[in-house]
Amino acid sequence: MIGIIMGSLSDRKVMQEAADILTELGVSWEMDIVSAHRTPEKMVDYAKTARDRGLRVIIAGAGGAAHLPGMVASLTTLPVIGVPVKSSNSIDGWDSVLSILQMPGGVPVATMALDGARNAGILAAQIVGTFDEAVAQNLSQFKEDLKEKVAHMSQQLTTPI
Amino acid sequence: MIGIIMGSLSDRKVMQEAADILTELGVSWEMDIVSAHRTPEKMVDYAKTARDRGLRVIIAGAGGAAHLPGMVASLTTLPVIGVPVKSSNSIDGWDSVLSILQMPGGVPVATMALDGARNAGILAAQIVGTFDEAVAQNLSQFKEDLKEKVAHMSQQLTTPI
Amino acid sequence: MIGIIMGSLSDRKVMQEAADILTELGVSWEMDIVSAHRTPEKMVDYAKTARDRGLRVIIAGAGGAAHLPGMVASLTTLPVIGVPVKSSNSIDGWDSVLSILQMPGGVPVATMALDGARNAGILAAQIVGTFDEAVAQNLSQFKEDLKEKVAHMSQQLTTPI
Amino acid sequence: MIGIIMGSLSDRKVMQEAADILTELGVSWEMDIVSAHRTPEKMVDYAKTARDRGLRVIIAGAGGAAHLPGMVASLTTLPVIGVPVKSSNSIDGWDSVLSILQMPGGVPVATMALDGARNAGILAAQIVGTFDEAVAQNLSQFKEDLKEKVAHMSQQLTTPI
Amino acid sequence: MIGIIMGSLSDRKVMQEAADILTELGVSWEMDIVSAHRTPEKMVDYAKTARDRGLRVIIAGAGGAAHLPGMVASLTTLPVIGVPVKSSNSIDGWDSVLSILQMPGGVPVATMALDGARNAGILAAQIVGTFDEAVAQNLSQFKEDLKEKVAHMSQQLTTPI
Amino acid sequence: MIGIIMGSLSDRKVMQEAADILTELGVSWEMDIVSAHRTPEKMVDYAKTARDRGLRVIIAGAGGAAHLPGMVASLTTLPVIGVPVKSSNSIDGWDSVLSILQMPGGVPVATMALDGARNAGILAAQIVGTFDEAVAQNLSQFKEDLKEKVAHMSQQLTTPI
Amino acid sequence: MIGIIMGSLSDRKVMQEAADILTELGVSWEMDIVSAHRTPEKMVDYAKTARDRGLRVIIAGAGGAAHLPGMVASLTTLPVIGVPVKSSNSIDGWDSVLSILQMPGGVPVATMALDGARNAGILAAQIVGTFDEAVAQNLSQFKEDLKEKVAHMSQQLTTPI
Amino acid sequence: MIGIIMGSLSDRKVMQEAADILTELGVSWEMDIVSAHRTPEKMVDYAKTARDRGLRVIIAGAGGAAHLPGMVASLTTLPVIGVPVKSSNSIDGWDSVLSILQMPGGVPVATMALDGARNAGILAAQIVGTFDEAVAQNLSQFKEDLKEKVAHMSQQLTTPI
Repeated sequence: MIGIIMGSLSDRKVMQEAADILTELGVSWEMDIVSAHRTPEKMVDYAKTARDRGLRVIIAGAGGAAHLPGMVASLTTLPVIGVPVKSSNSIDGWDSVLSILQMPGGVPVATMALDGARNAGILAAQIVGTFDEAVAQNLSQFKEDLKEKVAHMSQQLTTPI
Repeated sequence: MIGIIMGSLSDRKVMQEAADILTELGVSWEMDIVSAHRTPEKMVDYAKTARDRGLRVIIAGAGGAAHLPGMVASLTTLPVIGVPVKSSNSIDGWDSVLSILQMPGGVPVATMALDGARNAGILAAQIVGTFDEAVAQNLSQFKEDLKEKVAHMSQQLTTPI
Repeated sequence: MIGIIMGSLSDRKVMQEAADILTELGVSWEMDIVSAHRTPEKMVDYAKTARDRGLRVIIAGAGGAAHLPGMVASLTTLPVIGVPVKSSNSIDGWDSVLSILQMPGGVPVATMALDGARNAGILAAQIVGTFDEAVAQNLSQFKEDLKEKVAHMSQQLTTPI
Repeated sequence: MIGIIMGSLSDRKVMQEAADILTELGVSWEMDIVSAHRTPEKMVDYAKTARDRGLRVIIAGAGGAAHLPGMVASLTTLPVIGVPVKSSNSIDGWDSVLSILQMPGGVPVATMALDGARNAGILAAQIVGTFDEAVAQNLSQFKEDLKEKVAHMSQQLTTPI
Repeated sequence: MIGIIMGSLSDRKVMQEAADILTELGVSWEMDIVSAHRTPEKMVDYAKTARDRGLRVIIAGAGGAAHLPGMVASLTTLPVIGVPVKSSNSIDGWDSVLSILQMPGGVPVATMALDGARNAGILAAQIVGTFDEAVAQNLSQFKEDLKEKVAHMSQQLTTPI
Repeated sequence: MIGIIMGSLSDRKVMQEAADILTELGVSWEMDIVSAHRTPEKMVDYAKTARDRGLRVIIAGAGGAAHLPGMVASLTTLPVIGVPVKSSNSIDGWDSVLSILQMPGGVPVATMALDGARNAGILAAQIVGTFDEAVAQNLSQFKEDLKEKVAHMSQQLTTPI
Repeated sequence: MIGIIMGSLSDRKVMQEAADILTELGVSWEMDIVSAHRTPEKMVDYAKTARDRGLRVIIAGAGGAAHLPGMVASLTTLPVIGVPVKSSNSIDGWDSVLSILQMPGGVPVATMALDGARNAGILAAQIVGTFDEAVAQNLSQFKEDLKEKVAHMSQQLTTPI
Repeated sequence: MIGIIMGSLSDRKVMQEAADILTELGVSWEMDIVSAHRTPEKMVDYAKTARDRGLRVIIAGAGGAAHLPGMVASLTTLPVIGVPVKSSNSIDGWDSVLSILQMPGGVPVATMALDGARNAGILAAQIVGTFDEAVAQNLSQFKEDLKEKVAHMSQQLTTPI
């Protein structure tokens, strides 16, 4: 089970992509709104009980001064994947990226590209796939599908632009 | 009483400037190491009890993905002043600045310049000075001293470089 | 009483958010157009008389090479809160942010996020709340409301996107 | 077993920190020089055989136009952790960070902070710890030690600077 | 013959400009979709056989963490021209630019401006023109045409805006 | 007569280059310390009386949130040349550059390169040279000297490195 | 007479603002398309004959790798004002700004804000106004008008938003 | 024959690397100081006569507002390789990079990494190698040597750090 959390309902459109690819890869998930700045106690509780509730990985999305992924990582020994979300008042996304990426020594966050929730789901599946052979098989198939899509695009090149 | 906190002893050299100017301006202070990422529970406790312990303002310094000022601000209704510290692995200080400055609506952090702990102390004194006449007087005198220093520098210009 | 000033009428849409939240938090305010570059004398007069006119905090918004907050701070001992406004010719807001944030030692400006006027109002209320118990109560209630909004958003997650 | 690779011997000083913390956390590792640009065939071979050779996670460090982590991720279904190394001709590390972080959809790289090899090791251990209880215990102890270090630093504050 | 490749069909609109100017300058070309991250084996094959298939120059366009130009350059001794494409999730194009430009010593990529596919075509023609006099003549004529266009624009200045 | 001002004695080393080249080009100058933030009244007075005191151009150097050039420009109709100084706490000079360069419509500052005081002196001389033939002659000679220096450097290339 | 030049007709919309304000301030001007990269010979000729044709100041606007202002400055002793234009393929305007601003020692360009053509016109008038009393009077009146506009905006604040 | 030019003798240390690798790869070269801003006429002459003097490629290095590569490219139909040099007053090299890279449509410059003169030499050899089989052979051997160096570094990993 993968936990997907985000600071605000406005992040859902981006974060849903993590859930969708997890479903596609055969990994179960749950989703909740947990805000580092508006519900700090809920965040502490969520992170501290995550492992015992059976979560394997936490995916946390946040924008601006994005503290949710790093704070959750400080409160659990589970792997935490951070998704910088380009929010409306963001300075081109740099704030989200840097406040998730530049964690101090001791507390890593696996940072994804800006709005990279889909890749967060894939990485979570890869982590599960290190010990779950069925998920590993799904990932191999997924990689094959990527190749086929490119082959299909190659053929489309003959179509005039 | 002003609370001065920082994430690591390595931030002390910068943050001591806040304490020094507060002393000079006649405002008392306390100092502690409180790390958002390594001691999250201590941070929660520090912020939640701050008002009742008689603190008026909290000054928090941190570098890199600097979550301490924003997280403390989420846990108290006191004014929180954030000092971005240029730590050794920082990307030129941009990470510290943006992860303190770009707080979401609802949870402000009064952000200072990079390594601007001295200004954090002055701002804390200004906040105290809005209701404490003696401190306000000290601030007026401080402004006069700034002018005199410039006058003194003007005179030194006649000295060859 | 909080003074809210801005360099141009075009900044009003952003800066009105400071006034609105102050009203919501029970703090009175006044608003004016004061331009550092077009009305420097008015600015000097505004800042120098602010404390005697009963202002406790000044909120100043400006864009581009944003000199208003820093210049006002140089002319008063009141706390000054600066709001970087993303104006039309701005280089992604970096100019506004840096020319407000990076004040030299001696003259602090409490800098908010880009277009963060709402947070400027909250910080001003927090400063008032350090000595005004009624405002402090309003701030506590405001924090509770933030939590409830998140709880409400959590429930909405069950709705399909 | 964790694979640690880097593009050049000059990255070793940074990347050795990943190996050291893995040893401390009870996880075995191997290390090699694999360059995306100078030994592309070796890189393809390394990545394609990694899972069958028993690797669980690959940590890849690179500087400048850092293609090693992303290319390895394209060739395996194992989780790949990327460490941006601040090389000598780097533009302040931005090139390393962005060319590792901004991977396209389908091929994630778990990106660490600039020169964050130590955190790469911890994250790799956390991934192993999702199914290996002994490593999970070591990580819990590691978190406790972080807290104690802060407590120790708090005591040192009484020492004059 | 010039080879034009790109990571995705979505890059075609930009990259077609390279093909169009090559046609205009009398240089033949071929075009294909080759993705570093989704079809790494196809990429290796494309690059390794390029010289023997009669290609003189390879133009490679890619966005985000753009590894295609650099990886192709690592696998051939032909000149490789890289076109940073400003893709939808790009951080203002900086990621594409830096991951193509900042190649390590030994493996150059001739980097063009953001979305500069037209210039990539011209540069490829210039390379052909170093030994093909007809193409060199076409380039001279092309330069004359640029001048005439400016002369024409000068005349239009008399038209009111 | 050219007025050269700067915010602090620490800027003198950079700003002296403006004075030196002015002397070399036969233009007289005066120099003073005038701080926008520490001596705002002196700044107002300096700028308002500048034209009547016979100044033709004002060169103002400042670092960090550099308000001196823009504020002086708001208070005089003389041309103002701004020199961004890379001060010790500057964020790589970006703050100085942007807070001088990005002036709003109506109040121009002729901005020089970072630490470009020498060019500020030359530009001031060029302004004087628009109506003073002797200075224009000196500038022509200065341009000739630049060419000779390059010719001299060309000859030195035969020396082994 | 002020010369206004730009690299392309597409820059005209921005650059016309320089002409308009010059007209308003009573200074005559001429306008032409001169491209550093497409008509280098025309550029050399324009710059070398500018002083003898009676020009006092040259205003040059350009975008992207903007070489026109700096190259013109290298070929004349007249003051050259550079306007960075935010062209369509620009990286947020940074390329235009930096390639105009960061001129080497010996060849200054008076750089304006991004798209700051109006300020370029005002600065050119200020340069003329250093020796032309009528223009200086116009500039004083212009400054008064700026103040009145702010006073007018102050009154509009009573209107609900 | 490859022409290597640079704006100042201070760029020689970087640019010599281009010459050295060309020698190693069996391609002849000449070197000169040609400054866009200090010797514009020499630059025009150099570029216009380059093809007739037998040059095949021009390598131009420059720092700050680096106009030399782009201006030379505007004056010849030969391929021009630009090397951004990180000069002393540069803003972290961004100015050099952007003013070489972001050339407008019609006038390409093959841009190298910051201080990437060695790669400029290799690219020039690759261009020559498109029609000169001996140079192509040298490039193949050069690629083999790169691999051997990595193999040698792999063996050194057994040495304790």
